[in-house]
Amino acid sequence: MTRIDRSLAQSLALASGIEAPPLLTKAMRYAVFPGGARIRPRLCIAVARACAEDHARLSSAAAAAIEMLHCASLVHDDLPCFDDAVTRRGRPSVHKAFGERIAVLTGDALIALAFQGLAHAADTAPARLGALIGIIARAIGAPSGIIAGQAWECEAQISLAHYQRSKTGALFAAATSAGAAAAGYEPSSAWYSLGERIGEAYQIADDIRDVVSSEHELGKPTGRDQALGRPNAVHHLGIGSAIERLEDLVRSAIEVIPVCPGAADLRAHILGEASRLLPRELARPAA
Amino acid sequence: MTRIDRSLAQSLALASGIEAPPLLTKAMRYAVFPGGARIRPRLCIAVARACAEDHARLSSAAAAAIEMLHCASLVHDDLPCFDDAVTRRGRPSVHKAFGERIAVLTGDALIALAFQGLAHAADTAPARLGALIGIIARAIGAPSGIIAGQAWECEAQISLAHYQRSKTGALFAAATSAGAAAAGYEPSSAWYSLGERIGEAYQIADDIRDVVSSEHELGKPTGRDQALGRPNAVHHLGIGSAIERLEDLVRSAIEVIPVCPGAADLRAHILGEASRLLPRELARPAA
Repeated sequence: MTRIDRSLAQSLALASGIEAPPLLTKAMRYAVFPGGARIRPRLCIAVARACAEDHARLSSAAAAAIEMLHCASLVHDDLPCFDDAVTRRGRPSVHKAFGERIAVLTGDALIALAFQGLAHAADTAPARLGALIGIIARAIGAPSGIIAGQAWECEAQISLAHYQRSKTGALFAAATSAGAAAAGYEPSSAWYSLGERIGEAYQIADDIRDVVSSEHELGKPTGRDQALGRPNAVHHLGIGSAIERLEDLVRSAIEVIPVCPGAADLRAHILGEASRLLPRELARPAA
Repeated sequence: MTRIDRSLAQSLALASGIEAPPLLTKAMRYAVFPGGARIRPRLCIAVARACAEDHARLSSAAAAAIEMLHCASLVHDDLPCFDDAVTRRGRPSVHKAFGERIAVLTGDALIALAFQGLAHAADTAPARLGALIGIIARAIGAPSGIIAGQAWECEAQISLAHYQRSKTGALFAAATSAGAAAAGYEPSSAWYSLGERIGEAYQIADDIRDVVSSEHELGKPTGRDQALGRPNAVHHLGIGSAIERLEDLVRSAIEVIPVCPGAADLRAHILGEASRLLPRELARPAA
């Protein structure tokens, strides 16, 4: 078990007990395990390590909080009133498996648990808790977190820049910022930009896969952006320019890494992850 | 404007901005203003005062967090998949006024904002933040917060004790516990019990009003518990025993108030509130 999954399991244990309604407990675990690629929490840990983390339990809890909030957003985005997604990660979505009411409550309870788990793990470094809660709450709420990003889909006039920055960028920026804050580093716009650029690269990679991967196993339907009228970088830029933009973003992310003891390892982590971003037939050797 | 409403407005300002999706911002404000009786945050402040609060901004923020979480739960409980309530506080419910998607996101964003506002106000007393986040997150999540309480409605076999303790008691217990913690008091089971007993008294008063107030203006439909198959103390105990139970709870709440500088004022606050719990024709002079 990785340290991320271990920290997620520890948080879920806080939410369990004989007094818990069994379906909710089961659905919360189902939404979190088995996970997807755990991209955001791995990025958070990579930054904490690069900053020579001195409270590993706290950085693990920050990573787990970010992953729980990502899972909560997937559960709510899949609801009938949004994407009405039948499958997620290759099996029934939470509302298909447990019903719509439990799906609403699962998302709610995971949001609460993210903050609870973080506060629980901060007992050995209480002075860092305020910054961490601030970073993570801003990344999910209004005006420009992932919930605000989803709310742009309900507007007649969509602000594309705000939509993409909130919907994907915010939680990636929280992953890098929280990794640094958990290691005792002061908040900085460089850590924020690092996450934002990586997030935009992932968003473009997602857009590309949504268009070109119909023959591949994605674990979810392709062509969804077009079907749901959502913005997609390939539709805007064309496939060639979208790939170039993605590569530019990875390069500029690498450049913005602040001075820290493990900067070289962090650079390697980001390049390694980036090399897996594109479907194999589109990938070019990393810069 | 009361200090509670001022603190709520300050939190909502954190969630606003030109980069925010306008409908979401509007719906968050609509869910919180104008308020109901603000019972839970007033209880939180009354306890903080009784404990000779030294960081009034922090106790106001704790009270506002609890109220935002209460409002978030009302927005989600009113959704079509739960109570499908058309009105709330005498006007259209959030999903009727803004649509189901914005209603889901409004609840989510208010949960995030509750924690953000609290962290923001704790900058002058950071050592108290961990306990406050823990108290408040436990009160809303699983295994026994208000979300868990709502999830009991999805179970085939409902645990009545767990249902009522979670659905109402948890947030009242958080109000008293957080009021004390914001004033620097150590967590204690007495502050918790005080809130729990008051919460149970309010639940019984609600049950009584749901049954007997069909001729009164409640701002929401009556007879809902029977219509929705929900437990109601009057159905279980009869009206006379339900009133006796309510009066017992208020008495036992008064008795459990811990030693603190403002215990007499707190006792007066609770008795004053309790005197308004029952419809006028059922009320007897307070003990």
